[in-house]
Amino acid sequence: MSKTLYLLPNLLDENQPVEGFLPSSLKPVVNSLTGLFAESEKGARKYLLKFMDREKMQKVQIKLLNEHTEDKDLQEYIHSIREKEIWGVVSDAGLPIIADPGAKLTMLAHRSKMHVKMVSGPSSIMMALVMSGFNGQKFQFHGYLPRKEEQLVQALKDIEKKAKQEQSTQIWIEAPYRTQKMIDLSLQHLQKNTLFCVAINLTSSHEKVLSMSIAEWKKLNFKTDKSPAVFLLA
Amino acid sequence: MSKTLYLLPNLLDENQPVEGFLPSSLKPVVNSLTGLFAESEKGARKYLLKFMDREKMQKVQIKLLNEHTEDKDLQEYIHSIREKEIWGVVSDAGLPIIADPGAKLTMLAHRSKMHVKMVSGPSSIMMALVMSGFNGQKFQFHGYLPRKEEQLVQALKDIEKKAKQEQSTQIWIEAPYRTQKMIDLSLQHLQKNTLFCVAINLTSSHEKVLSMSIAEWKKLNFKTDKSPAVFLLA
Repeated sequence: MSKTLYLLPNLLDENQPVEGFLPSSLKPVVNSLTGLFAESEKGARKYLLKFMDREKMQKVQIKLLNEHTEDKDLQEYIHSIREKEIWGVVSDAGLPIIADPGAKLTMLAHRSKMHVKMVSGPSSIMMALVMSGFNGQKFQFHGYLPRKEEQLVQALKDIEKKAKQEQSTQIWIEAPYRTQKMIDLSLQHLQKNTLFCVAINLTSSHEKVLSMSIAEWKKLNFKTDKSPAVFLLA
Repeated sequence: MSKTLYLLPNLLDENQPVEGFLPSSLKPVVNSLTGLFAESEKGARKYLLKFMDREKMQKVQIKLLNEHTEDKDLQEYIHSIREKEIWGVVSDAGLPIIADPGAKLTMLAHRSKMHVKMVSGPSSIMMALVMSGFNGQKFQFHGYLPRKEEQLVQALKDIEKKAKQEQSTQIWIEAPYRTQKMIDLSLQHLQKNTLFCVAINLTSSHEKVLSMSIAEWKKLNFKTDKSPAVFLLA
């Protein structure tokens, strides 16, 4: 297969063995890459070394694809795929594109009539939704909510209203160091009968999925450290 | 681990080998099950046989979990988990719960203080979103749109408006035998500059992900057979 952009999954917990958590069809795909778009050089090298030795890894070209990548870089990246035929996209954890950059590059690959292919893998957002016990037939993902407290509280209230009006599960994320703050604000401002789920450290041995009403959450007096989390309400 | 409800992934294409498309951590989990909730008995047996021999399979209790399952059955199911300790939930394809029943049972398991755990696997909705080239930082899944043509056309127009207002990718599904009809209606009623993606037969050798503007779709004159598809617009 030539001129292909492969969207590739990563582990959710980088210390896990790839064999246990990613499908075996991934290894031959990674070994076929002429280049890899990744959030950082270090992350890209770590990823490649999970599937090949150092000597082979050093032959794979690495280009950065993150929030600093500009549109003119993307055009150049498409040119790279034209010249060197099989490129991958990987993010630091889970599925690329989902809550991460990469969509524009993928659209350019479609426009340039390249093959766009994928190997499936874990998505923390989907795992959180499946395990929440909330409606999985209608849902909405908001990415990051506003940072400033006043706007964040308003966003939480808007989302809560939407969940009830549309009977649709609402999902969002936050930087790990703000997990406790997000829980505190949610317990403070959401209604007692609203169902709230926090899915922490998914797939790791410290995984915790807590799903109950705001009233029950308040009794729990739950405290966490700076752990990656997905938040859901219904 | 005792009193556990395991949410388990299935293949998207049942003819594929499990080793290639599902993580290896799934096999020991399936082999630990005392019972399995599934959409059909036949589907459950097929699934179990991918991981164990017939003799072992016949010892795993099977209970139906589908659109006909009533709330009183769910209470009895929770009782089954209390007695026989490790139960799984699996759907006919992809991740359970997502666009399928099972959320209520999972919520009951949380309420009964059972462990709720999961093994990750392929989600056709997420794969379609990643490969579409559309925004993966904000998206909404609508499940099935209304059946009747007039209401369906109105739903498509509402979704299109929402995508543009909220800059959020809109995703929906339809029964395979109505894939061509959904494409025809979308081309007929969506605006020329709207981006439309159809992801067909994901992970199979007949996989096709077409992503372009409605104007470009109209030039393509695309015809498909009764294939499973995910639809997206942006």
